[in-house]
Amino acid sequence: MSSNSLQEMLARRRVLGPAYRLFYEEPLQPVRGEDVWLFDIDGRRYLDAYNNVPVVGHCHPEVVQALARQAALLNTHTRYLHGAVLDYAERLLAHFPAPLDTVMFTCTGSEANDLALRIARAVTGGSGVVVSTFAYHGVTMALAQMSPSLAPIGDYVRTVSPPLVQPGETGSDAGERFGKDVELAFGSLVDAGIRPAALLIDTVFASDGVVAPEPHLFDAAAAATAAAGALFVADEVQAGFGRLGADWWGFQRAKASPDIVTMGKPMGNGHPMGAVVTSADCAKGFADQGRYFNTFGGNPVSAAVGLAVLNLLEKGLPKQVEVLGTALGLALSRSLRGLGCRSVRGCGLYWGLELEERGSLCAGERARRVMSRMKQKGVLVGACGGHGESLKIRPPLTFRSEHSELLVDTLLQVLADI
Amino acid sequence: MSSNSLQEMLARRRVLGPAYRLFYEEPLQPVRGEDVWLFDIDGRRYLDAYNNVPVVGHCHPEVVQALARQAALLNTHTRYLHGAVLDYAERLLAHFPAPLDTVMFTCTGSEANDLALRIARAVTGGSGVVVSTFAYHGVTMALAQMSPSLAPIGDYVRTVSPPLVQPGETGSDAGERFGKDVELAFGSLVDAGIRPAALLIDTVFASDGVVAPEPHLFDAAAAATAAAGALFVADEVQAGFGRLGADWWGFQRAKASPDIVTMGKPMGNGHPMGAVVTSADCAKGFADQGRYFNTFGGNPVSAAVGLAVLNLLEKGLPKQVEVLGTALGLALSRSLRGLGCRSVRGCGLYWGLELEERGSLCAGERARRVMSRMKQKGVLVGACGGHGESLKIRPPLTFRSEHSELLVDTLLQVLADI
Repeated sequence: MSSNSLQEMLARRRVLGPAYRLFYEEPLQPVRGEDVWLFDIDGRRYLDAYNNVPVVGHCHPEVVQALARQAALLNTHTRYLHGAVLDYAERLLAHFPAPLDTVMFTCTGSEANDLALRIARAVTGGSGVVVSTFAYHGVTMALAQMSPSLAPIGDYVRTVSPPLVQPGETGSDAGERFGKDVELAFGSLVDAGIRPAALLIDTVFASDGVVAPEPHLFDAAAAATAAAGALFVADEVQAGFGRLGADWWGFQRAKASPDIVTMGKPMGNGHPMGAVVTSADCAKGFADQGRYFNTFGGNPVSAAVGLAVLNLLEKGLPKQVEVLGTALGLALSRSLRGLGCRSVRGCGLYWGLELEERGSLCAGERARRVMSRMKQKGVLVGACGGHGESLKIRPPLTFRSEHSELLVDTLLQVLADI
Repeated sequence: MSSNSLQEMLARRRVLGPAYRLFYEEPLQPVRGEDVWLFDIDGRRYLDAYNNVPVVGHCHPEVVQALARQAALLNTHTRYLHGAVLDYAERLLAHFPAPLDTVMFTCTGSEANDLALRIARAVTGGSGVVVSTFAYHGVTMALAQMSPSLAPIGDYVRTVSPPLVQPGETGSDAGERFGKDVELAFGSLVDAGIRPAALLIDTVFASDGVVAPEPHLFDAAAAATAAAGALFVADEVQAGFGRLGADWWGFQRAKASPDIVTMGKPMGNGHPMGAVVTSADCAKGFADQGRYFNTFGGNPVSAAVGLAVLNLLEKGLPKQVEVLGTALGLALSRSLRGLGCRSVRGCGLYWGLELEERGSLCAGERARRVMSRMKQKGVLVGACGGHGESLKIRPPLTFRSEHSELLVDTLLQVLADI
């Protein structure tokens, strides 16, 4: 891309206003995607180790075909009957344990989390919510107030530190601390005269800098939530659909039993889809207070796309992710020793590499520079954590060992340098 | 469809929970759509005079082709640069007067209205909102509290009667009354210690039973809004994109100057798309308080779809709608005289027919029965208004005079009977 056309694009981009942010000082201009690769306007190829939406790979032909076929046939809504919507609902629910037997469709993860909170309010009669320190749960007015990484929290929101598992600890050990924090947070709400409604947790704590949901990590927190009369909402928008390994959901890896599960990003491999899964009891508690309809949510085109994604995932991708992810985690921990990396956290194909400061570079600025240099070298990664101090790695689940090696080799070169 | 398979479908549908509602006692099971027609599982054809989403006709081949082509090529997000997103933003903004020069993308009309309210809060520092008596603005937690047709309103919300234009009155006359109500409503917020943020108005008052935005209908209300330090948000999710005639937007037909305009439903002809259009000043006021990103909103696939829809609309559909709509309005007013129809309100291809009660049938129950009988006769219409007392007519904009005649003839038969 000539710098003229880049300047021109940036000037034209003012029509989107100043609230949007571009990645990189010299932004990426992709024009084509295929599997784990993005190609820019100059034909340059980038290994995509960042984008978690195209879960079965960019532009997977079976997903595109399902989309095109149903869009040419019919696109209506849930006020009419349609077989594909029920097929999809049943196929999706087959991946959840009892009593999670009911699904309501949205178009985004934000809409799903927002709906989950409406359900929690209806069922509990409360409004108080507990989230993690740097949580991000979405972009609606209600969720912005529960997303300290985005905006000031509401006065009915309390935050708790994410349950970091220290070396030598089990999930239960960290979970005990987490449970006590959650109990105190609900207590603080009650003291302020605010009735608790929900513990809302991204099960991989993405924006907090990534914490893997080890078994029993949420046991004590779930007990404290139930004791407070609140519901446990597992936000699986980032963690779900096999990204963390053979368990399809973070809560499942943690052996937890949430009351409500939300999902979005990878659900349609890029087609706008989200959902809330809950029990018949919670769904009834919500329905007792009003009806639900989402114009686009649960339409036959989304159902066809969702089915195509499930078909591909069910061929064994989550197990493949588990094997590759374990190897990737080991390779990262081993290779990056002595390269200013404080910790390597994650599982499956979701990893956070917390960087140390180096010289005059604070960890956040260092992560930004590493991200840029990685891009120059043809590998896309992101950043997360309260100060953007952790590199964020979450590629399409079709990542294979040669991609993993390219990623680790490139990281090694860049971290040696920056 | 055999009644067995209908029973089976209804039983399977329990997985969606009790909050969803189906249309009709015997629900419709469409399997194919084409232009203004839906075809059910038995091959029966229905004239679609209800669905306002497929604005250029069900499954328009040019829209489907644009969708399929871009989905096969690339589907990313607004953190990378992409020409199609800027092309679409510029093409869309060309349909707005100064100073409305900035667009932010969402996936639904709900997300658009929710974002508009976040902008209004950021710009005004207030939270108080004025809406119409039976308004519906969306499904998020915040919007449910501003949608008295869906849920109890929040304590920071006030309602005003929609500005019904009485026989012999101009838009200004009804607008004066409306403006006084809006002034009182903002005054009531201030009296309660709540700083005003927005007047939020569906410009065709769809869920109130349809009121056409006559010229100057909003003049006094806009002045009262500005005087209260609040923003005027025109919700064009239902009215926009030429449905009301040669003016693309309801606010334009009313000769009003809103601070923020929201849109959704017809924007992608069924593909999940929404947007907020506002001034650079308001966008800056919002950006000063935080960033904005929507994972799926403004992706290249949505941009390609949006462009295809604009291409088709710009060939002259809104003007065609104006001519056909005027004729349809006359035909409805003339033909339904003496058939228990209290008033015919609307313009373009958005009409509300307020029914009278008949015998023991209240108007709402009568409208429900008419809706069902119309469907049996192969014509789909809806119902709206505070008690569902008005028939709602809002077909794809590719409706032509033969469809209009079939609609009026069938209505005539059914209203003579029920």
